[in-house]
Amino acid sequence: MAAKQYSFGKHYLVEFIGCPGERLRYVDDIRGPLLEAARLSGATVLESYFHQFEPQGVTGMIFIAESHFSIHTWPESGYAAFDILTCGEMFPDKAIDHLNGVLQAARVEMRILTRGFSEETS
Amino acid sequence: MAAKQYSFGKHYLVEFIGCPGERLRYVDDIRGPLLEAARLSGATVLESYFHQFEPQGVTGMIFIAESHFSIHTWPESGYAAFDILTCGEMFPDKAIDHLNGVLQAARVEMRILTRGFSEETS
Repeated sequence: MAAKQYSFGKHYLVEFIGCPGERLRYVDDIRGPLLEAARLSGATVLESYFHQFEPQGVTGMIFIAESHFSIHTWPESGYAAFDILTCGEMFPDKAIDHLNGVLQAARVEMRILTRGFSEETS
Repeated sequence: MAAKQYSFGKHYLVEFIGCPGERLRYVDDIRGPLLEAARLSGATVLESYFHQFEPQGVTGMIFIAESHFSIHTWPESGYAAFDILTCGEMFPDKAIDHLNGVLQAARVEMRILTRGFSEETS
């Protein structure tokens, strides 16, 4: 029994742990670093959107030609959940390194999952 | 050695496989079903954004109070990559069932990952 893989992209799930809360509070803390991370990764940015939670916390999303970037922050916990879904040639590590530098995480954890499916061929 | 878990949410990665291409082509095919899926899941919708690729294919994103929904479609392959990141009490299965009904996937695959981290406590 063989299987053919149909891969449409890689999904990077990144946990930024132990960040100073003041790095994660406001859209103005996150917008610039996220857009710069996308640029460094080689993504083609289409649109970007940010939401400010009260009293603090941010959701940010960038639509890229290659799929998306998203970030959600919990300043009170020093934690941010970041993901990149990419179906193109990109350098996600450069984006993650840049964000890590800005967010000053004590620890970073990453999982990489293939998006798509496989089909049995015989 | 014990570890304390800090869970900030569940990330549902869903593959819709073998959909009729005409279900996946245009923003107008996806916007209504995605918003209805969010409503059925119990999410609090904040904002939604859609991008039309030419000649076909869609990126859609909903910001919810509990984090996000995203979808990316490949009509020519009958495939859509869907994800829900939720940090609240929701019913993601209801969203997935609704989208599955509309997109008419021949097969659905789902992975559920916990977002957050653990710390050793002793």
